[in-house]
Amino acid sequence: MFKINDNYLKLPGSYLFSNIGKKVSAYTNANPDKSIIRLGIGDVTQPLAPAIIDSLHGAVDEMAKAETFHGYAPDLGYEFLRSAMAENDYAARGCDINADEIFISDGAKCDSGNIQEIFSVDNKIAVCDPVYPVYVDTNVMAGRTGTYDPSTETWSDVIYMPCTKETNFAPELPKETPDLIYLCFPNNPTGSTVTKDELQRWVDYAGKVGAVIIYDAAYEAYISEEDIPHTIYECEGARTCAIELRSFSKNAGFTGTRLGAAVVPKDIKSGETTLHSLWARRHGTKYNGAPYIIQKAGEAVYSEAGKAQLKEQVAYYMNNARTIYQGLKDAGYSVSGGVNAPYIWLETPDNMSSWEFFDFLLEKAQVVGTPGSGFGPSGEGYFRLTAFGTYENTLAAIERIKAL
Amino acid sequence: MFKINDNYLKLPGSYLFSNIGKKVSAYTNANPDKSIIRLGIGDVTQPLAPAIIDSLHGAVDEMAKAETFHGYAPDLGYEFLRSAMAENDYAARGCDINADEIFISDGAKCDSGNIQEIFSVDNKIAVCDPVYPVYVDTNVMAGRTGTYDPSTETWSDVIYMPCTKETNFAPELPKETPDLIYLCFPNNPTGSTVTKDELQRWVDYAGKVGAVIIYDAAYEAYISEEDIPHTIYECEGARTCAIELRSFSKNAGFTGTRLGAAVVPKDIKSGETTLHSLWARRHGTKYNGAPYIIQKAGEAVYSEAGKAQLKEQVAYYMNNARTIYQGLKDAGYSVSGGVNAPYIWLETPDNMSSWEFFDFLLEKAQVVGTPGSGFGPSGEGYFRLTAFGTYENTLAAIERIKAL
Repeated sequence: MFKINDNYLKLPGSYLFSNIGKKVSAYTNANPDKSIIRLGIGDVTQPLAPAIIDSLHGAVDEMAKAETFHGYAPDLGYEFLRSAMAENDYAARGCDINADEIFISDGAKCDSGNIQEIFSVDNKIAVCDPVYPVYVDTNVMAGRTGTYDPSTETWSDVIYMPCTKETNFAPELPKETPDLIYLCFPNNPTGSTVTKDELQRWVDYAGKVGAVIIYDAAYEAYISEEDIPHTIYECEGARTCAIELRSFSKNAGFTGTRLGAAVVPKDIKSGETTLHSLWARRHGTKYNGAPYIIQKAGEAVYSEAGKAQLKEQVAYYMNNARTIYQGLKDAGYSVSGGVNAPYIWLETPDNMSSWEFFDFLLEKAQVVGTPGSGFGPSGEGYFRLTAFGTYENTLAAIERIKAL
Repeated sequence: MFKINDNYLKLPGSYLFSNIGKKVSAYTNANPDKSIIRLGIGDVTQPLAPAIIDSLHGAVDEMAKAETFHGYAPDLGYEFLRSAMAENDYAARGCDINADEIFISDGAKCDSGNIQEIFSVDNKIAVCDPVYPVYVDTNVMAGRTGTYDPSTETWSDVIYMPCTKETNFAPELPKETPDLIYLCFPNNPTGSTVTKDELQRWVDYAGKVGAVIIYDAAYEAYISEEDIPHTIYECEGARTCAIELRSFSKNAGFTGTRLGAAVVPKDIKSGETTLHSLWARRHGTKYNGAPYIIQKAGEAVYSEAGKAQLKEQVAYYMNNARTIYQGLKDAGYSVSGGVNAPYIWLETPDNMSSWEFFDFLLEKAQVVGTPGSGFGPSGEGYFRLTAFGTYENTLAAIERIKAL
């Protein structure tokens, strides 16, 4: 008789954004006349840039002719895209990453969920708290997290690194030594960042204790201040201890187009074995590459026209971020984030819990945000708003919140 | 100090098709003037059908405008595609599969590699021998296969079901009881099929012993004979014990476009838990959906124009299959497959091993095929040729083989 992977049964409730979706559906069904503004899920609203559209049409035309048709892609992804990333994301910043250390994928969610597979089940993970739920949930599924305590909403074998107002929403080095450290800067959900010197401390720490950092750089394009690192490979020694995950979702609007990459330098080793060889084996055995036409769309992101158009797109969203940030400040909220990230993190008023504030905002202002507690216990009492709406909606949402 | 998943280190050598690629590269580098004909990897050569190209262009245009832009897709995939599959692949054949039991993915390779995750590591798998290597390799990575014996090229905890000339290249019910049974009909690599009555025996057997069948239907479009089932759900009781994997790679030429689906009926249960709920959780947590424009391409596969064009495309490849089959017969080879499948399975002459015949064919005829032994121990002494080349190349390859 077959048996299921009962680690799945340990997962409490369902995925955060599914829960939000259900609550919003229930509300709109009961109130069909109310207009909802969604600043919850981090989904973009602006269309793909013209340079990307042109590249997509061109690639589709190639698929229509036998001479230019593309079948199975190379295991690691097309060289044209890996080289564009190596040059623009790394060489241009003085970082030593080779094109064959970049593995093209269908997005950072898949990569951040799959990367744990190449590590032993015995490894102990450390995560920021609050954090993007996928890091912990995928480790739960793999049986790496011990038992769940519903009263604290924590797992016995996970090292939580609280990111609170007291720490400026950045983690401190953990007391207990982890094997895998998940970091995400600019941070989802808090919108916080660390300086290059602060990140260097993490790289030094990982090198010292023999941990691997899984660095999620999905929001890199939103960095506006100097001295904030755009990649972990700006830090000395990161090639021996850090995997970096890149996304096209937020810098180029690919949430529904699907493209990402994992960077696994060949210098991360366990004995004689490189993590690069393990990830290459996983790619070759379980994955068949991102679609050719989507990889061509990714190439256009790095063209001169694409870069200029996407700079404008990011600026559009960051104008929303400023609007939210300033509007909430004016309304008396305690707010952070929004300067180097498309996320604004606010303290709920009147000691409301995160979900109470979610319901309050939905019912009184028809604005959808994301409860901070959905990202971990230290997110309780906080709330995330995203800058990915249209400007008009963003402005309207803030006016509604101000009027409460 | 981090530890790796050392199950990966148990995998012997690298992935079959990588090995072939390396051998072919070495040969072409040494013999740059020779023209190679590839009938090895099952990669298609015909361009995407006009109806699919039109749909892709239309979807790209939608992504260019804010009003029709698409961000994150629904977890299970778009309803338009799931409904088209439910109607055409199932309802039209009298099978009871609901659209919400169909999970859209980026291909059958990913699904066949990932599906084992929702089962316990303690489950015992049964596979046809020879078989598509991904089924076993992904179970090795998960630690489900015991130890490897290099002398027999088998794993201690895998139940092998030999598919030999004596069994007409179909498996017999295993003596030892498995928990998970991987079946693929029309078969890769042998091109063999089973009748509906024969498949019903497997469904009955799985129901009786409490096993789950993972049924890979990737080559369904190539079935030409009556009485060969197009889906396992034609069999009574399959809803309680069978998962079916569908692919767009071979029926619609999507090897480089990437689209597939896993069908998980809600009737497969372990106690109170449905496999459907586990797979839904995996999809929601580790995957972000296939690109919108690719799902629109998939929709076009089921349009009237798309169906007519793809029928012609399949006929084109099946004409190649007949050419290979008849040509090899004429040349005195012992041949099977090629009637309901794009694969031709031949016995190597003069007691050559599969890899010896690979080298022989590459060096003497510059034709690339796939060594049968790469698919499992019972594949030794056999060789796979595919019908996915151009007609001209296929004809030329057969002429070369005849002339040897």
